[in-house]
Amino acid sequence: MTMPIVTLTTDFGLKDHFVASLKGALYAAIEGVTICDISHLVSPFDIQQAAFTLGHSWHRFPEGSIHLVGVGPAPSTRFNHIAFRMKGHYFIGANNGLFSLLSNERPDEIVEICPAGAEPTAFPALDVYVPFTAGIAAGLSLASIGTPIEGLAELIRPRHFPEDDVIKGSVVYIDSFGNLITDITEKEFESVGQNRRFAIELIGDEINSISRRYSDVDEGDKLALFNSEGILEIAINQGKANQLLNLRLNAVIRIVFNQ
Amino acid sequence: MTMPIVTLTTDFGLKDHFVASLKGALYAAIEGVTICDISHLVSPFDIQQAAFTLGHSWHRFPEGSIHLVGVGPAPSTRFNHIAFRMKGHYFIGANNGLFSLLSNERPDEIVEICPAGAEPTAFPALDVYVPFTAGIAAGLSLASIGTPIEGLAELIRPRHFPEDDVIKGSVVYIDSFGNLITDITEKEFESVGQNRRFAIELIGDEINSISRRYSDVDEGDKLALFNSEGILEIAINQGKANQLLNLRLNAVIRIVFNQ
Amino acid sequence: MTMPIVTLTTDFGLKDHFVASLKGALYAAIEGVTICDISHLVSPFDIQQAAFTLGHSWHRFPEGSIHLVGVGPAPSTRFNHIAFRMKGHYFIGANNGLFSLLSNERPDEIVEICPAGAEPTAFPALDVYVPFTAGIAAGLSLASIGTPIEGLAELIRPRHFPEDDVIKGSVVYIDSFGNLITDITEKEFESVGQNRRFAIELIGDEINSISRRYSDVDEGDKLALFNSEGILEIAINQGKANQLLNLRLNAVIRIVFNQ
Repeated sequence: MTMPIVTLTTDFGLKDHFVASLKGALYAAIEGVTICDISHLVSPFDIQQAAFTLGHSWHRFPEGSIHLVGVGPAPSTRFNHIAFRMKGHYFIGANNGLFSLLSNERPDEIVEICPAGAEPTAFPALDVYVPFTAGIAAGLSLASIGTPIEGLAELIRPRHFPEDDVIKGSVVYIDSFGNLITDITEKEFESVGQNRRFAIELIGDEINSISRRYSDVDEGDKLALFNSEGILEIAINQGKANQLLNLRLNAVIRIVFNQ
Repeated sequence: MTMPIVTLTTDFGLKDHFVASLKGALYAAIEGVTICDISHLVSPFDIQQAAFTLGHSWHRFPEGSIHLVGVGPAPSTRFNHIAFRMKGHYFIGANNGLFSLLSNERPDEIVEICPAGAEPTAFPALDVYVPFTAGIAAGLSLASIGTPIEGLAELIRPRHFPEDDVIKGSVVYIDSFGNLITDITEKEFESVGQNRRFAIELIGDEINSISRRYSDVDEGDKLALFNSEGILEIAINQGKANQLLNLRLNAVIRIVFNQ
Repeated sequence: MTMPIVTLTTDFGLKDHFVASLKGALYAAIEGVTICDISHLVSPFDIQQAAFTLGHSWHRFPEGSIHLVGVGPAPSTRFNHIAFRMKGHYFIGANNGLFSLLSNERPDEIVEICPAGAEPTAFPALDVYVPFTAGIAAGLSLASIGTPIEGLAELIRPRHFPEDDVIKGSVVYIDSFGNLITDITEKEFESVGQNRRFAIELIGDEINSISRRYSDVDEGDKLALFNSEGILEIAINQGKANQLLNLRLNAVIRIVFNQ
């Protein structure tokens, strides 16, 4: 058996000792483990952002990877802690809704590893998740380390259902380049659009074509492209779209197709 | 022999080449080494902060780990460089007092690896520590790589000795969540308190109970808990205690027990 | 064959999913690979800064390391993507001039791995570089994975040619300590200086000696030293030279030797 990779997605920041304590405990519990940071700069308690960041990267890792998440209002008397398996990957974290935003896939198996309010300390990533991560890394089945439960706690995302000639979506993430990432998929765009001409409506402006690369337009020009995840991005070649197009997180994006 | 883990605690930051140069040299000197960052965002020359960060995490790592520290006014004609062993872990760095703040434990063995003012360059972590780290990783004894010395250079921390009904301590660290970490231990609290009622005195306010988790109080409420290291923390559930309670680094914290 | 180390130099930042996606894909493509960050905090599109950071660290890594660079206006219809070998190390990135600033060495072999404008996506580090990195890691020759080309795209750096009694250089980088790093080498200094007395001219001030360590002068005093790379640095012991000496990036530095 190859040693699995453990990834870490947290809001712990990079200055304090939290990440180091967690990694030290993982190295001590799982000899030879490879640990990979997803991000520790998730905004405090921002489970949407954490879901976006992990959601855009987990599936790149080899099957068998264990994704440990320490973000959000947790520990809490309201949330239990869970481990689950999805497409050959394992996830461990608080059942606070974050995982329901991660993917359109459904988990194959979910177990509760710590009931709500039963955390032994204020640092469950260290005191609860590490031993269960070690168990999974050692090849234990989820059923043998926790109590099976049915579904993930769900966070409802506002979803705009496509009409015949219009797709509505929102800006769900703004990356550090200022690119505006929406929740509109290439699949939806193709299915509604059927190769018709279209306008992606911006404030007092519009985009009428899909680029493949940022540099397909001149420096400083706006563009739209489907990123590596097949998600619509509004960007400016070598510029900050969020500032120049005056669009914020959760702004509504409309694509109108020619009738 | 398993390959040891080398941890890095520095004030080098994450933008420049310093950390990468150090890691490259370690990979070149120690085939197959695992390198783990403790933190590179220690404030420049802040040995108290470095001692706190490493002090809260080193013991989580497996025995045999080598903890390399590059923080503080070093190299300097005033400080020598040392390696020492404590509870099965190895430490390498400048003997500038930082290590005396790390733990209440005493080292089992200390050796000087470079006399004061004898550093060959302005980058001793690279030019002095790497070869000695490689020596320790290869299984060499401390005695065979340096000159035995007696004690660590000591930095005196102001210590408030407990009275019959009062514990005084200070805020020694503020983490990135704004939690106020003190130097008051759970052991001291239990020994002086003997289960009596108490008041942790804040500015115009007090806390009268110990929580186990941040979420044991309502969002926005203040709380006190003993963290994973058994150290008293003053916090606000999902808020910034340092701002809301108007307490700064080195502020005095008093706990008064009922007579 | 030992598994090579893959290093990453990017302007992706540490908050978003880009670095994690890249690492996940590398772990999936190269079993057991060791991945080491050079820096992900290169200023967006700043190829000079990236060249400085990687240029000061790549040669510390073991031979056989593969240095992946994702910085700059890329992908672009103007730049192709290349892989090359230099002193036993491998490099992969956009041929946008960055690599010409890396070293005074010439590559031993250069191949084009993706023609200008042919990137399949907006994320060539992921979609183009990872499979070629895996090929090199698996022992494939450069000639077998790409099309041989002659030279690197060159960026011309303004160079001040030494006169008999004067060396002119520039501040090419300011590190996070505020140290001013120039493009004047120790070799040039010795060759022109011939042990004569000298003045490093600053704004209304001068430095007349070379220190070996920052602490060779008193705290707060200015100094000049040749760093671990043999490059002239202007610094202030425990202070920020860039602020206190009022010198910025690209400022000209003159050294005048006694006639």
